[in-house]
Amino acid sequence: MADVGSPEIHSGLEGVYITESSICKVDGQLGRLYYRGYSIDLLAKYSSYEEITYLLLYGKLPTGTELAEITKQLADARDLHPQIVELISTQVSQKADPMDILRTTTSALSAYDPETADMSKEANMRKAIRIISKMSSIVATIGRMNAGGTYVIPDKTLGHVANFMYMLNDKLPDQRSLDIMRDMFIVHAEHSSNASTFGTMVAGSTLADIYSAVTAGIAVLKGPLHGGADEAALKMMDAIGNPENTEKYIESALAGKQKIMGFGHRVYKAYDPRAKIIKEYLITLQPDATEQVRNYTAIALAAEKLMVDKLGQSHGIWPNVDFFAGPVYTAAGIPVLLFTPIFAASRSAGWCAHMIEYWQNNRIFRPLEKYIGPIDLEYIPIEQRK
Amino acid sequence: MADVGSPEIHSGLEGVYITESSICKVDGQLGRLYYRGYSIDLLAKYSSYEEITYLLLYGKLPTGTELAEITKQLADARDLHPQIVELISTQVSQKADPMDILRTTTSALSAYDPETADMSKEANMRKAIRIISKMSSIVATIGRMNAGGTYVIPDKTLGHVANFMYMLNDKLPDQRSLDIMRDMFIVHAEHSSNASTFGTMVAGSTLADIYSAVTAGIAVLKGPLHGGADEAALKMMDAIGNPENTEKYIESALAGKQKIMGFGHRVYKAYDPRAKIIKEYLITLQPDATEQVRNYTAIALAAEKLMVDKLGQSHGIWPNVDFFAGPVYTAAGIPVLLFTPIFAASRSAGWCAHMIEYWQNNRIFRPLEKYIGPIDLEYIPIEQRK
Repeated sequence: MADVGSPEIHSGLEGVYITESSICKVDGQLGRLYYRGYSIDLLAKYSSYEEITYLLLYGKLPTGTELAEITKQLADARDLHPQIVELISTQVSQKADPMDILRTTTSALSAYDPETADMSKEANMRKAIRIISKMSSIVATIGRMNAGGTYVIPDKTLGHVANFMYMLNDKLPDQRSLDIMRDMFIVHAEHSSNASTFGTMVAGSTLADIYSAVTAGIAVLKGPLHGGADEAALKMMDAIGNPENTEKYIESALAGKQKIMGFGHRVYKAYDPRAKIIKEYLITLQPDATEQVRNYTAIALAAEKLMVDKLGQSHGIWPNVDFFAGPVYTAAGIPVLLFTPIFAASRSAGWCAHMIEYWQNNRIFRPLEKYIGPIDLEYIPIEQRK
Repeated sequence: MADVGSPEIHSGLEGVYITESSICKVDGQLGRLYYRGYSIDLLAKYSSYEEITYLLLYGKLPTGTELAEITKQLADARDLHPQIVELISTQVSQKADPMDILRTTTSALSAYDPETADMSKEANMRKAIRIISKMSSIVATIGRMNAGGTYVIPDKTLGHVANFMYMLNDKLPDQRSLDIMRDMFIVHAEHSSNASTFGTMVAGSTLADIYSAVTAGIAVLKGPLHGGADEAALKMMDAIGNPENTEKYIESALAGKQKIMGFGHRVYKAYDPRAKIIKEYLITLQPDATEQVRNYTAIALAAEKLMVDKLGQSHGIWPNVDFFAGPVYTAAGIPVLLFTPIFAASRSAGWCAHMIEYWQNNRIFRPLEKYIGPIDLEYIPIEQRK
């Protein structure tokens, strides 16, 4: 209990419930994840990103007609305004961080949407679909321009993820890379009120428009404590280099109290179900994998075994979604600099779903700080200050 | 007390303490506001925006040397990169909302700062000064371009607020307008963990850089529940039109349960000290005021008296900082569309101060939602869905 006059500080808002929601259940004890009541295992197996977008926004799986409609809406919204393409190009030429470019460019989209200021639920649904569609185009274009290429005009006949790969590489993806990326887009689409979704809701809670809200979400996701862990985990695998070095590296890192990226989660105290899905994927694609991917896989599996034996049951520290992501992205030919932007592009569906749900029963977020400074100080004229 | 299994929902995080801070004390019961222990009344009377910036960032009033140094740093950072000027121009030509332009352009600044990724406290202090400096230049340029003008190269010999007015109007401000705007910049510079400052901290809590954090702050501030109330209050005065209509308008609005913009505050249950300062200013400038400003003032004072008599002591509903702001801005020649962007430009000092303080003892914000949807739904093949 807090003393009178000494309020309890809810550090990081851990354990604090901010709202009711029917979008996502994370069962941290059992290691389960549900989007709108559907297990992520089923969705990763059977669904598409278009269907997931519909499910998150509308709360139910679409019929054939509804799926065809949202698929068309997403496809129709893909193309970027020439000034948006120019903005990406300018920022790429400044060697800006891809997440910075994504944040700036998504923010700029608001200027080209005639419905930006319309706060009706219907308009927000339409804007959500445009944002979700265009963020993938922006990310693909950042990747393309970073590799020295130019804007690839989207292909409306392709699915959302296939078109993303097409705009990134200016060629159609092979089936394996497409399957990988479909899975990655699905498992990253939603995760309840994590930091970036919460940041989205904080922005929207003032009745700022959905572009403001999603821009805030991207800003939050940029931080290495949130969006950058898959990249950090892959860098660790690079540092380990050879599978035989894994044990020595991990032991030494743990002895030095270093954080092992890709392990542990504030909510999951069991195996992250998304990590399981990605790990299985990684194993199935071994036979045709490049030597680099096979090497990453061997290191990742060795590190996973060590960590789980040591800290799994005993400490509730298990691999999270980020741990196996890097090797899988590498197998799909995705450069490291796009890992977090792709996370953002797929999570945009969850951000928009949460924002639109929160607006149905909106309350501005305005917490308190405990003031610990002085009071009623005398204003001393500048010539007398020391 | 919450039932077992039914967690308490902290709606809007009202009453929830998130951190300790020595930046700002808002005494909502007594109607007092302190920056770093100094009463806002003293600061509005004696200080400058440069000094306030130093005070918020460094926690103490500057010596003469320190003030000269931060004044020079702010002045040196004022000029905008030609690509930033071009971005503002492009967005203005799309008739984008000024807050959207400010959000996009501030976000874009990160691409031009070689220290964006440097998370040392020293680098963050330097970046904070650059952001605070440049946001005023951006806001002035948005105003200038919205009025059909072009970029005005800043004048390093001017103070921060004078240069803002110079870049906005392409001429030096008269003393009265300068005094008004100096006061407005000071009273808007900081207000503890309100929604936009909190949004800034949520973004930075993932260790996202300070541009991401401030961009999130702007996104939050855009919403009419937060940043737009001064504009809404002025629109109400326009709707009232004639001071003699005030009573009828207010009575009818209250009878219709309409919110009167510019009154009431989640924290202040007494007269907002900033509203007092602005009101006094408004009264002192009457003798030379235009007819429009005199009319606004008469309406504002009549509305204030009615509201305070009816709801002040009895309901704790008093004028807040937004109520008298519109008439005062009008007296300084500031167009309505810049009210919220100016709020953002001045609040940037508070946002940066809070972010840098929070990073000293950082914890990622990750609250919880209470899931109220179904679970373990069966994935029905699409052709069987209804």
